Amino acid sequence: MSGIEALDVLAEQFARMPGIGRKSAERLALSLLNDSADDVETLVNAITEARARIHRCPVCQNLTDKEICPVCADPGRDHTTLCVVEDPRAVMAFERVRTFRGVYHVLHGLISPMNGVTPDGICLRELLARLADGTVKEVIVATGATTEGEATAMYIGRLLAPLGVQVTRLAHGIPYGGALEYADEITLSRALEGRRNMEERQ
Amino acid sequence: MSGIEALDVLAEQFARMPGIGRKSAERLALSLLNDSADDVETLVNAITEARARIHRCPVCQNLTDKEICPVCADPGRDHTTLCVVEDPRAVMAFERVRTFRGVYHVLHGLISPMNGVTPDGICLRELLARLADGTVKEVIVATGATTEGEATAMYIGRLLAPLGVQVTRLAHGIPYGGALEYADEITLSRALEGRRNMEERQ
Repeated sequence: MSGIEALDVLAEQFARMPGIGRKSAERLALSLLNDSADDVETLVNAITEARARIHRCPVCQNLTDKEICPVCADPGRDHTTLCVVEDPRAVMAFERVRTFRGVYHVLHGLISPMNGVTPDGICLRELLARLADGTVKEVIVATGATTEGEATAMYIGRLLAPLGVQVTRLAHGIPYGGALEYADEITLSRALEGRRNMEERQ
Repeated sequence: MSGIEALDVLAEQFARMPGIGRKSAERLALSLLNDSADDVETLVNAITEARARIHRCPVCQNLTDKEICPVCADPGRDHTTLCVVEDPRAVMAFERVRTFRGVYHVLHGLISPMNGVTPDGICLRELLARLADGTVKEVIVATGATTEGEATAMYIGRLLAPLGVQVTRLAHGIPYGGALEYADEITLSRALEGRRNMEERQ
């Protein structure tokens, strides 16, 4: 606490953000006070613009500033192969690899009873709705190799079993406990190549 | 890069901040998109409020939202003992300790030829002006125990030598290379108690 109210209020806002502790929040707040008025305006505009323009793609739930996101709108992508991921950062990671030519479905979370996230709290309803017309032949469950990632994958496997669609899981090239967006490109590529049917795993 | 322009622009703004890398910037940008509209408004208001209200105290150069900062305006403080610090975070650290009853002078930087910061680039002119009326009897140079902190202290020692004011330096209770704002309260207290005249050190 600096004793300067407006500064403490600002530092508190930064401290609410993921991965930002009290000291970092203080440092960020002070750095904004040292920035030029132009730089601060640019930041504030970037925040309001991003909020105004970016929404979820109605098809895959990924974030986009277009009506339909560029991946879903691309007829060159393989719309029969659907990669289910936790969040938009995982999509970014896959797109950096460039070996995946299918499309995505973003869950915006993982099932986590500890944190009160039930299957209804993530975009599973939208996933089921998408599979209704039979276009999708394979669902690759690409949640991270964490406890919640594995539990969510298992849930999806059971949920989709009656639909007759092939459900695969990323190979365990991903280091255990590793968050997906930190995987290097080769690890991600190998995990993708080595994917197998979910039934075989049990 | 997400391929979503407004998101990349926002992440770039965060990446400009101290201690924020590319991955963290991406995470912060995405977290803002998941926040409620109210939360985002609160953040934007906190930024603009802090910028509008906070300025440098004309006496000590510390940040404040008052005309004169509460320390300089407090007749209960010892206005004959002046503690010279690098930045407002150091003042916060001293104020948390509560054993220091003097007043401050904030340099807003350290002399750093490597980074192109000359003595003119920090608030030394304001320090000299403050010492003109003879109120201050002791100047405690409380820059950090880093190379630049030591060099700046030495420069101040020489600068003030002709003025007949006592110039002291914090004792080496501060761990070498340690930034001042991370020192624990006992270390800071001891460093303050063990301060000695700068001439004795050479």
